[in-house]
Amino acid sequence: MSPRPPAQIGMPAGDIETPALVVDLDLFDANLATLRDAVRGSGLRLRPHGKAHKCPDIARHQMAAGAIGLCCQKVSEAEVFVAAGIPDILVTNEIVDPRKLARLVALAERARIGVCVDGMAHVEGLKAAVAGKGVTVDVLVEIDVGQGRCGMPPGPEMTRLAAVIADTPGLVFAGLQAYHGGAQHLRQPEERRAAIADAAAAVRRATALLDQAGLACRTVTGAGTGSFGLEMASGAYTELQCGSYALMDADYARNRFEGPVFAHALLVHATVISTAVAGQAVLDAGYKALAVDSGRPVPFEIDTDIIGMSDEHTLLRQPKDRALVPGDRVRLIPGHVDPTVNLHDWFVGVRSGVVEALWPIAARGPGL
Amino acid sequence: MSPRPPAQIGMPAGDIETPALVVDLDLFDANLATLRDAVRGSGLRLRPHGKAHKCPDIARHQMAAGAIGLCCQKVSEAEVFVAAGIPDILVTNEIVDPRKLARLVALAERARIGVCVDGMAHVEGLKAAVAGKGVTVDVLVEIDVGQGRCGMPPGPEMTRLAAVIADTPGLVFAGLQAYHGGAQHLRQPEERRAAIADAAAAVRRATALLDQAGLACRTVTGAGTGSFGLEMASGAYTELQCGSYALMDADYARNRFEGPVFAHALLVHATVISTAVAGQAVLDAGYKALAVDSGRPVPFEIDTDIIGMSDEHTLLRQPKDRALVPGDRVRLIPGHVDPTVNLHDWFVGVRSGVVEALWPIAARGPGL
Repeated sequence: MSPRPPAQIGMPAGDIETPALVVDLDLFDANLATLRDAVRGSGLRLRPHGKAHKCPDIARHQMAAGAIGLCCQKVSEAEVFVAAGIPDILVTNEIVDPRKLARLVALAERARIGVCVDGMAHVEGLKAAVAGKGVTVDVLVEIDVGQGRCGMPPGPEMTRLAAVIADTPGLVFAGLQAYHGGAQHLRQPEERRAAIADAAAAVRRATALLDQAGLACRTVTGAGTGSFGLEMASGAYTELQCGSYALMDADYARNRFEGPVFAHALLVHATVISTAVAGQAVLDAGYKALAVDSGRPVPFEIDTDIIGMSDEHTLLRQPKDRALVPGDRVRLIPGHVDPTVNLHDWFVGVRSGVVEALWPIAARGPGL
Repeated sequence: MSPRPPAQIGMPAGDIETPALVVDLDLFDANLATLRDAVRGSGLRLRPHGKAHKCPDIARHQMAAGAIGLCCQKVSEAEVFVAAGIPDILVTNEIVDPRKLARLVALAERARIGVCVDGMAHVEGLKAAVAGKGVTVDVLVEIDVGQGRCGMPPGPEMTRLAAVIADTPGLVFAGLQAYHGGAQHLRQPEERRAAIADAAAAVRRATALLDQAGLACRTVTGAGTGSFGLEMASGAYTELQCGSYALMDADYARNRFEGPVFAHALLVHATVISTAVAGQAVLDAGYKALAVDSGRPVPFEIDTDIIGMSDEHTLLRQPKDRALVPGDRVRLIPGHVDPTVNLHDWFVGVRSGVVEALWPIAARGPGL
């Protein structure tokens, strides 16, 4: 499927072809263990978000580190994860296209499948897709807990929708999707605390209404790397969807964290290709290797700044303590992990300076 | 190679699965004809930039519309274009890695291959790569004409480098790469005129120095969609590298153009998946389908604004004249064509409302 990888197993890390997405496997393992340990004993389930990595190998490592399944945003991602043997997938998104719904329902023959809805159109679509297929699909009503993207307000319309789901053959009303994406990137712990307090209050209003209607809310799922300790402590959630924790990025590093801290396990390796213009060095990686929606990448362990970027190039100020020359390697912390990963076809896993793993980003793409 | 395409030939355009990169084939043909006609009779060669589309099918259309070959930025792109039968490829970039140089030289057995240098390290690398291979590679010295990225200043060091190239078996000193990328996006014609006047003056200084040294400058190549009329009129250039003209984007549309105007042949089709939050509609395309390095996309033929974006979603204000509902299609003009195309695996070509072509973006990726 994927083009030629930028490395071979056993190769020194310095020989990886660039640009390349390189995972420090010790830090990656530590990040997975840190989250597993933070959640252990809480009674909450861990369902890491596969949208961050789109990679079956990482999904399998997350399952081995205590996950009960994965989430994803696209049916095409769910297909890749089910094909890789992940037994339980939640699509944390609304699906409208009948062809996509048919593909989602087909996956329910091979795995436990959940999906979100926030209106009657989605439920009608699911009802038609599941009719006569002899499978069941878990359906979660998405509520807006402050993100302002998808999701109904907690209220009578939400309860009616849950009741319709519960009454539809082949559909199971499984609970609530209650993710507050905006809260993840609030920089101060007290800002995140306030945002998740509001989110948890909205969840409680929703579950109270559902309880009154006799609709059991088995699952309340949400949370991310920036806030999961707060959802965990709130008592309102049953499941955590952290994604970025496994790899991390420069944007999350701008948060002030209390509690467990995750390491930068993911770097983009680049090579200096030109120093002809005085005072600068040009790298062979630009917008096609590094997403900039959440800010530019950050040079790693080198005293320099990025002074410009274009499609295939990043311009660095020459460091004061050394002169970069063509062929030198520079490592960059991605600005935002998910869309940066989505630009690449391979993760190159490195341990003790040697390439140990090549993981295809099998679900890469805008997603159908 | 590529995952399943988002459409089938013969399908109505309204049935294309989303998100999808859709080309209006009539407008695409018209854009190619417009540039061909603008250049015809000028004596300049047309070498469109393949980095904009990474697609052999588009490259073949450009060859049929008067191109003498293509340019690209990566050896992996050159490999795709040579495999597709394009007979003449210029890599408008510096290559350092000996493995990449070996692959580039191998392509010279099957096509005319050119590459840029801006320092002795590149020439030494090429010399080693070409030794004993029985092929020749065209080498252009890149000069900095105002872009401030790669490229030497016109001067004695440049002349010495050209002389070394000319004396190296297997290498041909072919001329100058003189691209001013920054000039393309200056909004006013008079700003672009001033920038390209400076660029052309730098080219003349360089060619005069090379002439004095007896080094014939067969090719001076550069220019882009924003400025090519100026390079053409300057008399300093022999070859034009326009790329965006074939498809266009919202950023180029912010230029005030004199002379030929190119149409928005490329749109991203998206579907409304949620309208649960009052006053807004959520699309199924975000940062993984639409690059934002040069600004957000622009809604096409609908009275709305983008009020938010995230990895897989774009939030629109509900239009005043109608209410979008789940399942409705919305089309977006990409903010920046090259990195948006690089997110997708297929172009879907539409004519008269029907899918006529499916073109794989075969060189998609950060590029090795």
